[in-house]
Amino acid sequence: MKIDGTAYRTIWIDETDSWSVRILDQTKLPWSLDIIHLTNLSQTAHAIRSMQVRGAPLIGATAAYGVALALRSSPDLTTLGDAAGLLAATRPTAINLRWALDRMSSRLRTIPAAERAAAAYREAAAIADEDVAQNSAIGDHGKALIEQLASQSGGPVQILTHCNAGWLATVDWGTALAPIYKAHNAGIPLHIWVDETRPRNQGAFLTAWELGKHGVPHTVITDNAGGHLMQHGKVDLVIVGADRVTSQGDAANKIGTYLKALAAVDNQVPFWVAAPSSTIDWSLSSGRDIPIEDRDPTEVTTITGRGLDGIVATVRIVPSSSPAANPAFDVTPARLLNGFITERGRCHATAAGLAGLFPEFASPQRRSA
Amino acid sequence: MKIDGTAYRTIWIDETDSWSVRILDQTKLPWSLDIIHLTNLSQTAHAIRSMQVRGAPLIGATAAYGVALALRSSPDLTTLGDAAGLLAATRPTAINLRWALDRMSSRLRTIPAAERAAAAYREAAAIADEDVAQNSAIGDHGKALIEQLASQSGGPVQILTHCNAGWLATVDWGTALAPIYKAHNAGIPLHIWVDETRPRNQGAFLTAWELGKHGVPHTVITDNAGGHLMQHGKVDLVIVGADRVTSQGDAANKIGTYLKALAAVDNQVPFWVAAPSSTIDWSLSSGRDIPIEDRDPTEVTTITGRGLDGIVATVRIVPSSSPAANPAFDVTPARLLNGFITERGRCHATAAGLAGLFPEFASPQRRSA
Repeated sequence: MKIDGTAYRTIWIDETDSWSVRILDQTKLPWSLDIIHLTNLSQTAHAIRSMQVRGAPLIGATAAYGVALALRSSPDLTTLGDAAGLLAATRPTAINLRWALDRMSSRLRTIPAAERAAAAYREAAAIADEDVAQNSAIGDHGKALIEQLASQSGGPVQILTHCNAGWLATVDWGTALAPIYKAHNAGIPLHIWVDETRPRNQGAFLTAWELGKHGVPHTVITDNAGGHLMQHGKVDLVIVGADRVTSQGDAANKIGTYLKALAAVDNQVPFWVAAPSSTIDWSLSSGRDIPIEDRDPTEVTTITGRGLDGIVATVRIVPSSSPAANPAFDVTPARLLNGFITERGRCHATAAGLAGLFPEFASPQRRSA
Repeated sequence: MKIDGTAYRTIWIDETDSWSVRILDQTKLPWSLDIIHLTNLSQTAHAIRSMQVRGAPLIGATAAYGVALALRSSPDLTTLGDAAGLLAATRPTAINLRWALDRMSSRLRTIPAAERAAAAYREAAAIADEDVAQNSAIGDHGKALIEQLASQSGGPVQILTHCNAGWLATVDWGTALAPIYKAHNAGIPLHIWVDETRPRNQGAFLTAWELGKHGVPHTVITDNAGGHLMQHGKVDLVIVGADRVTSQGDAANKIGTYLKALAAVDNQVPFWVAAPSSTIDWSLSSGRDIPIEDRDPTEVTTITGRGLDGIVATVRIVPSSSPAANPAFDVTPARLLNGFITERGRCHATAAGLAGLFPEFASPQRRSA
């Protein structure tokens, strides 16, 4: 997507040296647009852990490039295994991370050492390109939902989203925001309610920023406000992303997603999860088995913004004697979801629904469930 | 309650002049403990509007003293009417404000002008003292609930609360926190989950502060986290306050309360509203008729905290080109509540339940509902 008229992806190979990796530092947005240079494995692991890159699909693509960077300095199988192990441990909840690392490992293990690094770059590029194509397809399948609502609605279609599942969370297009960009580009009037998404405010910092840069009308709200807006008929549709989806359709996503799904059900507002198939963990059936990352309480007790003097500053917003807890994700049970928007189309949030779209991944007993 | 060993109320008559009014400036907590001097009506209206005082019961008591201050400078009936009108317009949602002003007006209208100011001070003091007594009774009735849970629980009783319905929201004791203080004082082990309560962070700023000053174990969480904690059995009970309750038991409270009530129902966690009878609006049956205050979007786009340099600073946390919306309350339908904790005991969140406790206020048709 574009920033001030220039097309960007969130990750790319440096144009001059053709091997180092460039990313946007998402911890600096929306206050400044900093491009970071990744030249080795540990920088890449740090970028994922510190959330310079975040969003399940982008984490996967970044980890793939991390493997390529590691193999460039040492193409042996021990390095491959160690790199995959280090990167897998950076974020426990996003399944795309493990998916990308498994794909890299199985593809590269049988390649001769002399060709392994080059093959790793090709595979990482393929993962990135496929992510863009998949998200574009998610956008098309989701746009059809919005078109239906637009035909029934007098005014703009009002869509609520939580956290950032936009192009910044992927290589391009986004997951939850891909349908929104496709609908907006097609001239359908929209208005997006952007949950600020405490504690890291990816909604206020990233979703609002990228929607604004693309010209999509939107309003930032606190995470507390969405239920009230739904009660008053001001939300036609909720679309969120996911960090991991089980074979039965339970969906882990940013903390607070579950609360919005409850409110959507209570107010008959359709609630869809947009995610590529790489987000589905076919090895898990119940969402209760998804590991939930507990992050640093400092993310709750402090916040960074731009001071009235223009300088970006961090302030503490909890009394110094009070502890804080910071679970980063929650699991929305499949029963609360209208369904999934995937690269192959939409489906119900059931084992049968997901297996119907992806029969090659679903085990036989799951397919019949 | 006590601050560092010294007993305070949130509002009191100045000890030296015996007529001006002292309040704690709650917009400065937890960063500094500033005591403000109110000497006239417009300062009082400003204190309510700017939330130097907040919390439905405290707003009522402050407005009563505002009437007394106005009548002290001019005891005629026009002043009485104008003062009540000005104060009633400061905050639209809290019913206690209107209740206190109606009580002051009807009590003072028939008093001779020469005695009216003195009577106003007495009536305001009575409102404040009755608030303390009522909240103490709420604490006793709610403590019984906590005792039941403690007898079933191995560890501390885990209670989640939203916003600040503590002693800072009342004249003393609090509403939602009164049972917590009573149980804590009785030696029942507790742990309180404190929703930070964006946008004004009354949970993180005020509830965490007052619990910490009183020594009650607590942990601050984002507003997004409560549903996840309930899914994992980490919440035994939710108690919140209310700004207005209808005769059928719908409850307006700080934005986001509705989402927590949905999660409590989904996880079979008891959810109680603690409120004195002055919070009940017997003229309304449906919560949809409660006016909801839209506050300044700046409360969403900026936040104030203590900088790493120790200086309190305000930072912007939404891109400057993105608009924000700020509905301040939502309405939790009675069907989601286990009931109310009032000064006369507990009751179901139904017209019959409320009328059973307060037959003198309920109309006959409501009593039979």
